[in-house]
Amino acid sequence: MKKSIKPNTLAMPTPVWCVGSYDKDDKPNVMTIAWGGICCSVPPMITVSLRKATYTYGSIMERGAYTVSIPSAEYVTEADFFGIATGKNSDKFAVTGLTPVRSDVVDAPYVEEFPLVFECKVVETFELGLHTQFVGEILGIKADESVLNEKGMPVMDKVNPFVFTPATREYVGMGKTVGQGFKVGKKFMK
Amino acid sequence: MKKSIKPNTLAMPTPVWCVGSYDKDDKPNVMTIAWGGICCSVPPMITVSLRKATYTYGSIMERGAYTVSIPSAEYVTEADFFGIATGKNSDKFAVTGLTPVRSDVVDAPYVEEFPLVFECKVVETFELGLHTQFVGEILGIKADESVLNEKGMPVMDKVNPFVFTPATREYVGMGKTVGQGFKVGKKFMK
Repeated sequence: MKKSIKPNTLAMPTPVWCVGSYDKDDKPNVMTIAWGGICCSVPPMITVSLRKATYTYGSIMERGAYTVSIPSAEYVTEADFFGIATGKNSDKFAVTGLTPVRSDVVDAPYVEEFPLVFECKVVETFELGLHTQFVGEILGIKADESVLNEKGMPVMDKVNPFVFTPATREYVGMGKTVGQGFKVGKKFMK
Repeated sequence: MKKSIKPNTLAMPTPVWCVGSYDKDDKPNVMTIAWGGICCSVPPMITVSLRKATYTYGSIMERGAYTVSIPSAEYVTEADFFGIATGKNSDKFAVTGLTPVRSDVVDAPYVEEFPLVFECKVVETFELGLHTQFVGEILGIKADESVLNEKGMPVMDKVNPFVFTPATREYVGMGKTVGQGFKVGKKFMK
């Protein structure tokens, strides 16, 4: 018998992804989001949800593009700052010492120090309520060679991402592999 | 200098959430998704993306509701099976021995053995490409009391969820807390 909890955004885990954009003056900005995910395989798309009040919202509306830079756990302090500060009156790259790099694929900057980057062009904008959902087609991916395996694919324990728990506001790192997808479940196949 | 990778759905980590629905004959079904996330705070909403070819797609289109049951890592085998089998010609609950429970909030079943459940009513359906994105408003949450803290909030290390790495198809468990959200980043505030 389960206990009922008042509806709220308590689903877990959520990603910790840093959304890069240029403002109208071409200043690079980056904000951390936990409301987002992959939303389509063909074409490959990533969605991120932002409040209209954020500085990034206006930039993405104007530029029609954003990047998603995935921070390693060693950058949890910077990533948290990117989520609590606003680009309206601060240069988050300058404050943290991290490096904005202009994407050669979309009109947005990414974070050089973060190992895995998705370059997205906005294809849909959905007004849902407090949050606006941007759907971006992935037009490019950039990765540090150090996080790739022999097949050129990014490996979890090298990227070393972390997740967020909305209920307790904790950032949690990755643990051990618990199974191989599309394989362990075959135990139940007749 | 980063290396370019061909655009694909390689973002990580992604959630491993099990989507419950009833088909037209009222048979409970459940499928595992990794393309999804929280997408709005007010009202609280969760989005899941499904291919039209899935059995669950038709059920959600007909019933206008779904649940998201979050499996603990001990259920990785069942959760993987829920992703590779189809409810069209199998009863995934019967095969795995897990228990479907009819939600008292929306027209969909959830997985009793999974500790944290979100009961969602479809409010938007967006055709994006191979995947259709359902946006569901969270109308109810059910949780095992054993995963709640003294404030009644679900705790990550008790829920013990796991994530998916699209690039290598691995399921990975949770590790250690690496920081407190909206706190560690204050180091950079003036």
